[in-house]
Amino acid sequence: MPPVEAAATPEPSLYAQLAERIGALIASGALKRGDRLPSVRDMAQQQGVSMATVLQAYRTLEDRRLVEARPRSGYFVTLRRMAAATGRGSSPAPQALTEMTQPPNQSQPVELPDIVDRVMAAASDAAMVSFGAACPGGDMFPSDRARRAITRAAQRHHHALSRYPFGSGTPALREAIARRALAIGCQLDPARILVTNGCVESISLCLRAVTQPGDTVALESPTYWGFLQILQSLHLRALEIPTDPRSGISLPALELALDTQPVKAVLVVPTLSNPLGATMPLAARRQLLQLLEARDVPLIEDALINDLAGRAEGRRAVKSFDTRGQVMLCSSFSKTLAPGLRLGWVEAGRWSAQVQRLKSTLSGGHTELVEIAMTDLLNQPGHEPALRQLRALLASRLDQARRLIAASFPAGTRITAPEGGFTLWLELPRAVDAMALFHAALSEKICLAPGPMFSSTARYNHCIRLGLGRAWGTVEQQALQRVGQLARQMADAAGAAPKAA
Amino acid sequence: MPPVEAAATPEPSLYAQLAERIGALIASGALKRGDRLPSVRDMAQQQGVSMATVLQAYRTLEDRRLVEARPRSGYFVTLRRMAAATGRGSSPAPQALTEMTQPPNQSQPVELPDIVDRVMAAASDAAMVSFGAACPGGDMFPSDRARRAITRAAQRHHHALSRYPFGSGTPALREAIARRALAIGCQLDPARILVTNGCVESISLCLRAVTQPGDTVALESPTYWGFLQILQSLHLRALEIPTDPRSGISLPALELALDTQPVKAVLVVPTLSNPLGATMPLAARRQLLQLLEARDVPLIEDALINDLAGRAEGRRAVKSFDTRGQVMLCSSFSKTLAPGLRLGWVEAGRWSAQVQRLKSTLSGGHTELVEIAMTDLLNQPGHEPALRQLRALLASRLDQARRLIAASFPAGTRITAPEGGFTLWLELPRAVDAMALFHAALSEKICLAPGPMFSSTARYNHCIRLGLGRAWGTVEQQALQRVGQLARQMADAAGAAPKAA
Repeated sequence: MPPVEAAATPEPSLYAQLAERIGALIASGALKRGDRLPSVRDMAQQQGVSMATVLQAYRTLEDRRLVEARPRSGYFVTLRRMAAATGRGSSPAPQALTEMTQPPNQSQPVELPDIVDRVMAAASDAAMVSFGAACPGGDMFPSDRARRAITRAAQRHHHALSRYPFGSGTPALREAIARRALAIGCQLDPARILVTNGCVESISLCLRAVTQPGDTVALESPTYWGFLQILQSLHLRALEIPTDPRSGISLPALELALDTQPVKAVLVVPTLSNPLGATMPLAARRQLLQLLEARDVPLIEDALINDLAGRAEGRRAVKSFDTRGQVMLCSSFSKTLAPGLRLGWVEAGRWSAQVQRLKSTLSGGHTELVEIAMTDLLNQPGHEPALRQLRALLASRLDQARRLIAASFPAGTRITAPEGGFTLWLELPRAVDAMALFHAALSEKICLAPGPMFSSTARYNHCIRLGLGRAWGTVEQQALQRVGQLARQMADAAGAAPKAA
Repeated sequence: MPPVEAAATPEPSLYAQLAERIGALIASGALKRGDRLPSVRDMAQQQGVSMATVLQAYRTLEDRRLVEARPRSGYFVTLRRMAAATGRGSSPAPQALTEMTQPPNQSQPVELPDIVDRVMAAASDAAMVSFGAACPGGDMFPSDRARRAITRAAQRHHHALSRYPFGSGTPALREAIARRALAIGCQLDPARILVTNGCVESISLCLRAVTQPGDTVALESPTYWGFLQILQSLHLRALEIPTDPRSGISLPALELALDTQPVKAVLVVPTLSNPLGATMPLAARRQLLQLLEARDVPLIEDALINDLAGRAEGRRAVKSFDTRGQVMLCSSFSKTLAPGLRLGWVEAGRWSAQVQRLKSTLSGGHTELVEIAMTDLLNQPGHEPALRQLRALLASRLDQARRLIAASFPAGTRITAPEGGFTLWLELPRAVDAMALFHAALSEKICLAPGPMFSSTARYNHCIRLGLGRAWGTVEQQALQRVGQLARQMADAAGAAPKAA
């Protein structure tokens, strides 16, 4: 087991060491399923550490689903062992996708299939079973807290309704963002944080600040279709880089690209990338930064769902190692706190002034009252426990979905095993055409995202992405099995021998 | 007196005829100051028209400040005659600026002086007397209504807080915008309206949709500095067109430009342009559209403050004549309803799909709760009376400011006489350097906007714009006189003979 690392400290800290020791006791059977852990106070006295350290250790174990908190009773070793880790009953174990992707090594202008619009329309159609969108459902968020926050803001700050907004966001919101950024290992200066209309706007502003039309941008392959749309609309060329489904963008391949092609910016999602769900190890994050510093190429880092990484180590942003302003860090709260409060942010390192200027010139500030409500929500102590619950809920759901897929999809189907988040990427047997599968599923009111959306190469025609953040009940589970059945029929019809993993 | 025209009907209608007849009775003295007009019911019976027609006629007269409504008493001929129309006491009459501007007839890349940032920082400094910004103060808006609207929205629609926003704006808001657009003569299809982050974003999206970097855009001279910033950041060339301070952009000059230069789009503020405050006559609006239709060049129409035009005719958008989707109409509610609810809109004619795509790709949707509150405010019956009050208040303030300027600025100073809005443009004697005046005023905590901000040519170095929408009491009036005194000292120091108007 790798040592758990605190987000803000590079070395294993007291709480991580304690969590590791308790984890080892559970693994050895010394602590059994259902056992109650010592109270926080007792454990602190036993170990000679502070109660805060013990609490943090217990929460770390909770994140890893080794223990669970029961209201007013304390912490217990989890009763049900993780099904995904052990397999169960007659279900076959899911086959993990582990091969590096192999996009062409030349950049190209982006030509996205018009399928994106249809998929997104279907994904937001309430009559569909939607595996198309990559976002958690509204029921996962504390909408009551959001409602109270905005009502409070309207009552206490109604002057905010009759004046123009702050161009960069209210100082209080920027301070709250800086505090939250500690959880991803970053110490940011609030004065350099710019509030935006969401992570998409943050990234498009960063790209505008450091590129000209015709320039080349390197990014993961496959990558989020929204990035490809931004590149297309800014007339930028995409250079897709081989990417490992577990550890993310290939650094040797990126280094070669940087040394042989005129790459003006690198756009990466180091934590829970979309669609692969890869999370870069810490050493790779440091190395990525060194590569780019040595060549003075800006890194645009998408930290949209770092808060959803299962392990604290995975939450830590590349930006946390950045001492020279090389990293433009982009994020928002749409996927982790309040989808309906539409605000994102960017700390654009050395390019902060340019990004700020572009923002005020091309779009302007935001509704101050929404910024006040968001500040309130971010500063509430309930946010961190809500995140832990969200991570646990999504992890359990991904486990269930992977087992269902292993049981119902064609032999040879390989699935990613992301350490958090709410999406899975499936590589189907080559005989299965993702577009045909998309249309077949759509005709049965099931929406999924076909592989061709995630690349401007033709490499992923037998892949699909499943978003599992929306509703997840019998209907959805049956729909997922039905997609598997459709895929099996396609594989069988093509007479293809099941491909061994 | 020109016939008053209903916004949505090209010929003088019943109510306009009635308003004109009553206006003539006031002018002739048959109705005297303080006289009560017949009740709406009585007048309707006398004239054989509907009560709605009479009410509309009375409101038209109220807009022109010939009559005033007193709560529960009816309509009365205004007691105080307009000072600006008559002069008063020993004040000299303001000299009107009437000469067409003469920018160079070549396009150029935009190079804005860095003064803009300093002026805007000073304009938002609470310690300043601010004539720098062109926006009404918060006290002019019904912030209580806005607060109630957002509280209601949070209570009744809290599900909106936990779901992703509508990409184009909620259907209800787009319908409310379409209804409001009737007041500027337009019948818009809600499905083609796109909600944006403000008029600035609307315009930048339109420019992106119809131009490529390096293209030429024609616009008024002088023009709003924000437009020049957008052009600069999109790498577009500005072709400034001669403009009349009363009737707006010169159509012969524009026609010549269209026929001799590669103009890809025309960006115009037909109503209460910024900074000149010009309002194009209806005939000129039709002709502008014909010019552009004949050459298939898109018109980007900024209708930001059409609602603030003193005469209904001036409120009518060029878009109202557009049958072929040639006009991209942009507006917002920041200056007329709720500065703190940050929402704008665009109906981009034939380019609607492109604009929508750019918006969703580069910035995404908005906080739904704010859209719900805005819909509520727009649909309240109080909005139209509030607009009438705002127009009357601003008109009286501009009159006072013009008299103060005539009395305190150097001889030869000429002032625009806009038919509404909240800004004045002053042409000072050439010996007065606007930048020197800006710095001198700034050192006394007074902010104004110097002419060079409004052009990428060097034509307006002896001009300033005064924004009069903020506070307006003794302090501000004395500050305005002090600016005049500073300007006089500069004119005298240069030994310049006062220039005759």
